[in-house]
Order: sequence, then structure tokens, then C-alpha cells
Amino acid sequence: MGEAIRIIGIDPGLRRTGWGIIDSVGNSLRFVASGTVRSDEKESLATRLCQLHDGLAEVLHQAMPHEAAVEQTFVNKDATATLKLGQARGIAMLVPARAGLVVAEYAPNAVKKAVIGVGHGEKKQIHMMVKVLMPKAVFDTDDAADALAIAICHAHHRPSAAYRMAALVACS
Amino acid sequence: MGEAIRIIGIDPGLRRTGWGIIDSVGNSLRFVASGTVRSDEKESLATRLCQLHDGLAEVLHQAMPHEAAVEQTFVNKDATATLKLGQARGIAMLVPARAGLVVAEYAPNAVKKAVIGVGHGEKKQIHMMVKVLMPKAVFDTDDAADALAIAICHAHHRPSAAYRMAALVACS
Repeated sequence: MGEAIRIIGIDPGLRRTGWGIIDSVGNSLRFVASGTVRSDEKESLATRLCQLHDGLAEVLHQAMPHEAAVEQTFVNKDATATLKLGQARGIAMLVPARAGLVVAEYAPNAVKKAVIGVGHGEKKQIHMMVKVLMPKAVFDTDDAADALAIAICHAHHRPSAAYRMAALVACS
Repeated sequence: MGEAIRIIGIDPGLRRTGWGIIDSVGNSLRFVASGTVRSDEKESLATRLCQLHDGLAEVLHQAMPHEAAVEQTFVNKDATATLKLGQARGIAMLVPARAGLVVAEYAPNAVKKAVIGVGHGEKKQIHMMVKVLMPKAVFDTDDAADALAIAICHAHHRPSAAYRMAALVACS
């Protein structure tokens, strides 16, 4: 079996940031929890970034994951949308890094390949395969399901001890 | 004279984030400090965001500003550059917001107008006018000079008491 490694996957977004936590034990995956941190669109940008920060920090505090994974998002929309996503993504990477976790990044096609076996596919397929791989998985939004897929991707790709050691120097 | 309001201006960037602190007393401006927080390009993105966070948090801890201002940056470069800037900007807004400061945003032409009197102009002109407006101002990088210009812009635009009250509810 080996030790259980608890992984948090994060799918960042300014309005909704999905998170999913799984335990990777040997070759098996176990669903732990998932959810969505929302920011209030009526608030200022700075306040919304605080809301994302505080929500994610609370999740980390409760679940105590060992490693984190965030999707390497690329947006083809306008620069304003990309800047918004970037701001949310900055928070999504900062929170686990400040907690001493290594934060891995995966391209969207790597996430798809890890979950559905090929580098392309629809969102529905990904969500279905998350349920196949972890029958007990529940998710309240697409973002939470995507976050679980990112966590699964990391469980498949994560290198071993040398990589984990890097966590110790990631951020003080 | 009235009370002195200490303002931090921040010019965010992943490689270099400039900061500038001024005191606004009545109609006069007083230079307090400026500097540049750098992130190490050899490190992971998460670690670099931590470096920006820790550097800015230290500046806030030392200088104890009352209000913050960040430029509303727009990038015309590729999406990757915009995403990078967004990530750094997320940190630049989060740190003062978490410290309980209201974080104002200003468009680049508003900053130019506040400093050189018109909404367009070269960087050199802005830096020269920062020195004219505050002869004691020193800055180690263009980013620090820009940050001082953003702080000056906020000193000109900041509304009064009602606005400051909002700081109390900005972020807990």
C-alpha cells in the first residue's frame, strides 16, 4: 500500500474556484472532499481576492493536504478575462505555497489524458470518468469536478521522494 | 494641515513589483520610501508569488500605510504575458487588502494625468515629474518610480471619510 498522499486540485476562477481533495494510496485513489469557493461580484476586486484566499486557506486548514496541483489555464478570450483569471490563479497558487506545499501545474490536455485516456474530450466525459475512478466522489459545480480531475492527474504524474523534498524549500 | 494619510502605490509585475510610499498632508505630498520586490526567475511560479507576497507584506509591516493604490494594467502582449501579470497583480492587491487597507485601482492615463497633467506621455516625463512634485524622492527602478506616480494619483483622487470607512469592511 505505502503511505497515503493527500492531494488538493484547484481549478481557479475569480467568480468560482473549484477544489477537490483525494488520497492517493499506492495505485488507488480515494475521494476525500470537494467544493467551490465563490467571490461576491458586488465587492471590489481586492475584497474578492481576499474571499478566494480565505476560502482556500480554510480548506487547506481543514483537510491538510500534502501536495497541490493547479491547471495551467490558457484563455483565448480577451485580455481582460485573462487578467481576471490570472489574478484568481495567483491566489490559488499562493495559498498552498504559503502553507509549505509544492504546487504542481498541469496543462489541460495532461489533465484530460490522465482522466479519460486521451488529450481531448468534453467536460462531461471528464466528470463521468471522475465518478468511474472514484465512485464516492461528489461535486457541487463543474469547477469542483475539474479540480478533482486535476488532483487525479497529479496522483498519476507526481514524482517520488526527491520531488516531495522540494516542498520543504518551496516557501517559508 | 489635517491628518497625514500614508499611501502605498504598487506597480505589479512577476519579475519586479515596484512600491512607493508617500504621506499626503493637506495639499502637500511627502516622499517616505520606495523600492522593488523581485522574484527569482529560477524558482517555480508558486515560489515566486510567495516571494512577491512576503516582500510586499514586509513593506506594509514596516511602513504601515493607510491606503493602497494599484495600476489597472492592460497588456497588449500575448495571453501568457497577461496571465503572468495577472498572477502578480492578484498578489499585489491581496496583500494590502488582507492588511485591512482599501485598494484603489487607477487606469494608466489617470496616473499620467495626475502626475504630468495630461493623459499621455513618456515614462521619462512621469519620472521627472515625480521628482518635481517630491524633490526628495528616490527610486531604484522604473517600477518604483511608477509606483510613486500611482501613489500620487491616489493622493489626488482619494475621496474622503466615507470612502475610508469602507476600509473597515474591505477584508477581514
